[in-house]
Amino acid sequence: MWKVSVNTFDPNRITHYGNQFLIGHLKIGVRGTLDEFEAEQKVGINLPFVYDQVSSGWREPVNGFNPLFTSLLINGEEAHMLHTPVISHVQELDMKKAMMTRTTIFQVQDIQVTLTSERFVSANDERVILGRYQITLNKNATIQIHTGVDAQIWDIYGPHIKDKKFKSGDYLYVSGLTIENEHQITCIKKVMTDVNDTLSDSIKDDKVLKHIIIHGQKDVCYHFDQYAIIGVDQSDESLMMKLNEIIHRGYENKRLEHQHIWENKWKMADVVIEGDEQAQLAIRYSIYHLLILSPHMYDVASIPARGISGQTYKGAIFWDTEIFMLPFFLNSDTKSAKKIIQYRINALKGAKEKAESYGFKGAFYAWESQEDGYDACTDYNVIDVFSNRPIRTYFKDKQIHISGDIVYAIKSYIERTHDFEILKEGALEVIIEVARFYLDYGKYHITKDQFEIWDVMGPDEYHERVHNNAFTNRLVKMVFDYILYLRDYYINQKDSFFEQAVTRYNFDKELLLIESLAPKVYLKKPNSNHLIEQFDGYFQLKNVELKYLLNQRIHQNEYLGGSGLAGDTQIIKQADVIAMMYLFRSDYQIKIMEENWQYYEPRTEHGSSLSSSMYALVSCLIGKPNYAYPLFMKSATIDMTGLSKEYTGNTYIGGTHPAASGGAYMTAIYGFAGLSFEKGIQVNPQLPSSINQIKFHILHHGKKYKISVSKNQSTIEEVQL
Amino acid sequence: MWKVSVNTFDPNRITHYGNQFLIGHLKIGVRGTLDEFEAEQKVGINLPFVYDQVSSGWREPVNGFNPLFTSLLINGEEAHMLHTPVISHVQELDMKKAMMTRTTIFQVQDIQVTLTSERFVSANDERVILGRYQITLNKNATIQIHTGVDAQIWDIYGPHIKDKKFKSGDYLYVSGLTIENEHQITCIKKVMTDVNDTLSDSIKDDKVLKHIIIHGQKDVCYHFDQYAIIGVDQSDESLMMKLNEIIHRGYENKRLEHQHIWENKWKMADVVIEGDEQAQLAIRYSIYHLLILSPHMYDVASIPARGISGQTYKGAIFWDTEIFMLPFFLNSDTKSAKKIIQYRINALKGAKEKAESYGFKGAFYAWESQEDGYDACTDYNVIDVFSNRPIRTYFKDKQIHISGDIVYAIKSYIERTHDFEILKEGALEVIIEVARFYLDYGKYHITKDQFEIWDVMGPDEYHERVHNNAFTNRLVKMVFDYILYLRDYYINQKDSFFEQAVTRYNFDKELLLIESLAPKVYLKKPNSNHLIEQFDGYFQLKNVELKYLLNQRIHQNEYLGGSGLAGDTQIIKQADVIAMMYLFRSDYQIKIMEENWQYYEPRTEHGSSLSSSMYALVSCLIGKPNYAYPLFMKSATIDMTGLSKEYTGNTYIGGTHPAASGGAYMTAIYGFAGLSFEKGIQVNPQLPSSINQIKFHILHHGKKYKISVSKNQSTIEEVQL
Repeated sequence: MWKVSVNTFDPNRITHYGNQFLIGHLKIGVRGTLDEFEAEQKVGINLPFVYDQVSSGWREPVNGFNPLFTSLLINGEEAHMLHTPVISHVQELDMKKAMMTRTTIFQVQDIQVTLTSERFVSANDERVILGRYQITLNKNATIQIHTGVDAQIWDIYGPHIKDKKFKSGDYLYVSGLTIENEHQITCIKKVMTDVNDTLSDSIKDDKVLKHIIIHGQKDVCYHFDQYAIIGVDQSDESLMMKLNEIIHRGYENKRLEHQHIWENKWKMADVVIEGDEQAQLAIRYSIYHLLILSPHMYDVASIPARGISGQTYKGAIFWDTEIFMLPFFLNSDTKSAKKIIQYRINALKGAKEKAESYGFKGAFYAWESQEDGYDACTDYNVIDVFSNRPIRTYFKDKQIHISGDIVYAIKSYIERTHDFEILKEGALEVIIEVARFYLDYGKYHITKDQFEIWDVMGPDEYHERVHNNAFTNRLVKMVFDYILYLRDYYINQKDSFFEQAVTRYNFDKELLLIESLAPKVYLKKPNSNHLIEQFDGYFQLKNVELKYLLNQRIHQNEYLGGSGLAGDTQIIKQADVIAMMYLFRSDYQIKIMEENWQYYEPRTEHGSSLSSSMYALVSCLIGKPNYAYPLFMKSATIDMTGLSKEYTGNTYIGGTHPAASGGAYMTAIYGFAGLSFEKGIQVNPQLPSSINQIKFHILHHGKKYKISVSKNQSTIEEVQL
Repeated sequence: MWKVSVNTFDPNRITHYGNQFLIGHLKIGVRGTLDEFEAEQKVGINLPFVYDQVSSGWREPVNGFNPLFTSLLINGEEAHMLHTPVISHVQELDMKKAMMTRTTIFQVQDIQVTLTSERFVSANDERVILGRYQITLNKNATIQIHTGVDAQIWDIYGPHIKDKKFKSGDYLYVSGLTIENEHQITCIKKVMTDVNDTLSDSIKDDKVLKHIIIHGQKDVCYHFDQYAIIGVDQSDESLMMKLNEIIHRGYENKRLEHQHIWENKWKMADVVIEGDEQAQLAIRYSIYHLLILSPHMYDVASIPARGISGQTYKGAIFWDTEIFMLPFFLNSDTKSAKKIIQYRINALKGAKEKAESYGFKGAFYAWESQEDGYDACTDYNVIDVFSNRPIRTYFKDKQIHISGDIVYAIKSYIERTHDFEILKEGALEVIIEVARFYLDYGKYHITKDQFEIWDVMGPDEYHERVHNNAFTNRLVKMVFDYILYLRDYYINQKDSFFEQAVTRYNFDKELLLIESLAPKVYLKKPNSNHLIEQFDGYFQLKNVELKYLLNQRIHQNEYLGGSGLAGDTQIIKQADVIAMMYLFRSDYQIKIMEENWQYYEPRTEHGSSLSSSMYALVSCLIGKPNYAYPLFMKSATIDMTGLSKEYTGNTYIGGTHPAASGGAYMTAIYGFAGLSFEKGIQVNPQLPSSINQIKFHILHHGKKYKISVSKNQSTIEEVQL
C-alpha cells in the first residue's frame, strides 16, 4: 500500500490532481499536473517563503518557471490529454520513492502512442527536478517533441515576475525578478537524449524550447531525461555548476540516491496498520504529506497551511503547524520540531509589532505568518458573493489564541525532548511576551472577581468577536500557569536564568499580577447538562440543524461566518470546545467529554480541515473509536479524494491540507493506539473494528521506541537510534 | 407665520403629506391625508401605546378605524384627488389652532366643484376627532356624499384587528379586537347636517357609510359636520355618552374650546424669531410637533421616536426623548418633563430583566421601549437589500448608553426643577441600578489601571461593537460621579434616605467599588491634533470622503452600517464625539471643540435626524452660529420638507422626527440664545446673521421667565406663572 493512483482522467478535477500527485520538499513544490499542461491547468512550481506582493493584491509565495513542460506531436498532430482520444491513462504517486509517474496511451490517427513520464524532486538537493520521458508507437511515424521551460506562470495575485530573460542553446534558461523585493528566480534545464535525430531550439510565447524530431519506428522506446535546477537569488554560475554536477552523476544514480533518502525517512516515520488496507494507504498518504514538508532544509522556516501545493492561504504559517503537525515531528524528527519552535522565536519581533499596532503590550502572533512573523492576513479575507465586495473578517485581529497555541507547542516540545535550552535560545522570551499580551488583552471583572477575555475569535471562525471563548480562555490560563511553573522550575534548579530574564524584559510587576490572576482566569464550567458553552451567549443562539442551514444558502459558495448564515446560530465551522477538550484532556471526565461530543458534533460543519481529527481524537478518549474512524479517514484522505472546499466566498482556497494529515497521524497514534506520556510511555488501544494492529516508532526524551498495539497485546520497546 | 401649506399635489409625496399635516395628541395621531384617501394612501389613525404583535412581525402600535373617510360624486362622477382634474388645491396646517384644512377645486365634467374640509383632534378630550366638510358648485348638479368609518387599515406588520363588528344607523359604529392582548378598539361617528335631502346608510367593503344625496344648486355652500370618538377598551355606553355630550356642545363651541387650549400652550411655548421668517416658521413647526406629543394625558407614558405619525420605529421610546425632547419640556411644561422621567422609573423592571437576560446585573434600558420597559428592538432591525435576509444589528444589545442617557435626564430634571422628591419616587433606584449595570458591564484594565467599557455601540450606529466609545465612557463616568454626589448631598442634608436605599438595594459594596473606580473610568483625551477618538481604533479606519462612500452604493437603500460600506471607514452616521461635547460642554475648551467639529462634521452622514442639532449646538458654543444655521434649519424643517430617509435596507422608517424638532428647539434656545444655568440664568447670544432677536419663556426652579435676546441687548425677566 504505497501507491496512490487514478486510471481515468476527469478534466474537472485537474486542480485536484495537481494536489493529489504533488511532489517536492519545503523548498520547492511541484504540482501533479501533466507534462503537456500549462498555466491554465494550474501547473505550479511553488517556491515557499519567496513571498511577493503586486500592488494591493495578497502577498503570496511565488511560482517559478516550469521546466517539465513537454508537448508531443505524432505525424504533426498533437497528443494532448485535453484534446486527443485516450485509450488508457494512469497517473501514480509512489509514496515510498516520492516519485510521480504517468502512462497514457493516446490514439493519434491510426497510431497508438504510449507516453510514460516520471519525475521527482531530488531529496538531496536544494531545488532540483529530474524527469524521464518515454514514447513508444505501434506504427512508424514522425515524433516531434517540444520540451523546455514554460515561463507562463499560474498566479493568483500575480504576475510576480518581471524582466524575464530567456536563453536557448545546450541549456535552456529563464530568469526574472520578483516585483516587491527583486528576488532573482532562475530556471536552467538540460535535456539529455540518445536520439540522434534533428534538434533545434526556440524562444517564443514565454517558453524556451528544445525541438526534437524523431523518425519513430514501431515498438521502439524513445526517451530523454530532463535535469532542471531552480535558483532563488543564486548566481547563474553556481546554478550551472550544480546542474552539471547532477548531470554528471546521471539520472539513474540520482534516482537511487533520492529513493535511498526516502527509504530512511519512512523507516522512522511509517505507521503500519494491519487489517485495513484503506486505512494503511490513508495514513501513509498523510505521512507522505508531512514528510515532504519537513523544515529541516531551512535556517528559519515552518510549514505553510497549504504546504507546497500553491499560493493559497498566502503560503503562510498558521496555528495548524503547532497544534496539528508538530506532534508528528515530535515523534519522528526532533530537529524539524525544533525548527517549528525556532521559527516562532524568530517571529517574536513581528508578533510584538503586531500587538503594538493594536495598542497592546507583548506578543500577538500573526494569524498568517510570513517572514519574520509578518502577518499577511488582511482585514478582508473573503469576498461576498452577493455584492462582490470584500467582507471584513476578524481572523487577523481577534484570533488571539494563536499566541497561546505557540506556547502550548513550546511546552509540548520541552516535555517531549527535555530540551530546556530552547528557553534560553528565545523561547522564554516568547512565553513572557505572550503572557504579557494576554494580561493586557484580558480584563478583570470586578464584581465577579474573575479575569475575562472579551472580543476574540476562537477556532470556530463563524462566530466573530465573542467573549470568553472557552478554548481561548483555557489557553490563557495555561500560559499563566506555565510561566509560573517555569519560575518554580528554575528556582528549584537554582538557576537564575528565569529571574534574570524577568528583569531583562521588565516583567517583574506583570509576573506578580499573573500570579494573582492565574487562579482567576474564567474557565467555563459544565452546566447542568454537562455542557461547556463555547462562548458567552452561545447557547442562546438559534439552534438549527446543519442540513437546514445549508439549505438556506442562496449561493453555493456564500460565506457562512460573521453576518452570514451561521453567525447567529449554533452551527460552528470546526471543533472548538472539543479541540480544547483534546488539548487539555486531563481536565475532563470521560462523561463530560462524551456529552459535549454528542452536543457539538452535529452542530459542526467541519468546514475546516482541522475539525474532523479533533472529534476523532476525543472519540477515542471516550472509548468510541468507531465514531473516530470515519473522521480519521476523512482527514487522512482529504487530499486523495479532493473532497474539501475549493472556494469560500469568491476566494480560491484549494491546495493540500497538511494539518488534516497531521490530525490523521495524531488520531492513529494518540487516538487508536492511545499513546500518552503523562505517566511514562503508555498506550491505551482504542482500535476501530477494522484495524487489528498498529506499529510505529517514536522518539521520546532523545530515545527511540518501537511500539506495537493490537487488540490483545501491546509492546513498547526501546530500539537503536 | 403660523401656517404650513402646500398649493400643489404630488402623488409621490402622499406619505410625506401624511406626516407634514399631522394633527392629534399623544393618545391619537391623525395623519394629514385627504378625506377621500384610504389605506393605500397611508391614512393612519394612530393609537400610541396600544401595541400589538402578529405572529413574528414587529410589535407596533395599532392604527384605528378612520372616521374621516368621505367620498364625493358630482352627477355620479367621483371627485377624487388621484383621478379627477384639479383646478387648484391647498392643504394647510394652522399650527396656532392645531387644525388641518384642505380646499380643492375639482373640474368634474363642466362643473367646478369646491371642496373645503377642516379637521381637528380635540385638545380637551381623550380621543375625539371633529371635522367640517363643505361643497360649493358653480352649476346645478347632483351631489352624492359617502361618509363614514373606513375599517380598512394601513398596517406595516398587521392586520392587528380581528372580529370587526359594524353597525349603521344614526351612529356609524365599528369595533374590533387586537390580536395579541384583545384590546377593544371602537370608533363611533355621527354626521350632522342641515341638508334635508335623501339620507341612507350601508355596510360593505369594510366601511360603514352614510349616503347623502343633494340636489345641489349653483353657488350654494352645502356642509356637514363629523363627530367621532375612538375608544380603547371603553364600553360602547361610555363612548356614546361622551360623543353625545360633544355633539350637544356643538361643532363651533368645540372648535373654540380647542383653539383656546392651544392658544394657552403657545403662550408658554412659543419662540419668536425676528428678522428671519423662514426660521420663525421652522421653529414654530418644531414646537408644534413637540406640543402634540406632551405626555401629560397619561399616567405612564413618554414620547415615541416617530411621535404619533404611524407605526414605524415600533411606536417605541428611544433616547431621543431624554436627550433631544426633554429640554423643551423642562423649559415649558414641567409636568410633562416629570412624566418622561416617571416613564423610565416604571420601566425599571423591564430594564432589570433585560440586563439579566444578557447575564448582567442592574438596569439595561430598552433601546426601543414599549410598555413597562419591554424592549421591542429585535436583533434583526434591517433587511439586507442584496440577499433579502435580515441583518444582525446591535442596537438592542450593545447600545448601553441608553441607561446613562436616562440618568443624564434625571440629573437635568432635578437640576432644573429642584424636585428631589422624584428620587424617592423611584429615580434613585433607577440610578443605582444603572450604576450597578455599568459596574458589571465594564472591566478593569489591570496594567493600565483604568476602567474600560468594551463592546458597545455609541450614538453612531454604523460602527458596531466598539471599545471605549468616548460618548459611552463619559456617560458611565457621569453616572458614577452623580451617585457619589447624591450620597454626599444626602449626608449634608442629614437625610438617611440614600443610605437606606443603598442598604435596601444591597448596593453597599458596589458603591465602595464605584467610589474607587469613578476616577479611573477611561475618558479619551485629545490627541496631539486635539482630536478625541470616537472609539479605540477609529483613527485607523479608512479615511474616505462621504461623497466617495455614497458613490460606492450599489443599491440606493443599502444599509451602510455594520458590514456595510461605512463600517470600516471613518464615516459616521451621526454626532457622537460632538454629542458628547455638547452634553458635557463644560469639560472642553472652545479650541478643542472646534477642532473636533471640523474633523468630524465632514465625516458625518447625518443619517439620523438626531445629528444636525448636535453639530448646530456645538457650532454655537464655538462662536460660529452661521455654521449652525443650516443645520438648525435642516432639523427644524425635516418634516416640512420630507427630506429624510424613508427606507433603511428594505425597512420603511418614515414618519415625523420629534427629536429633530427638539434639537431645533435646543439650537434656538441653548445655541442661538445661549441660555445656560450653570451660574444662574444666563444668555450668551450667538445669533446667526439673519436673526435679529429671539424671545421666549422658560420655567426654572418653579418660576417663569421671559427672555429676550438680540445682538445688542438681552433681558431676563421673571413673570407671573
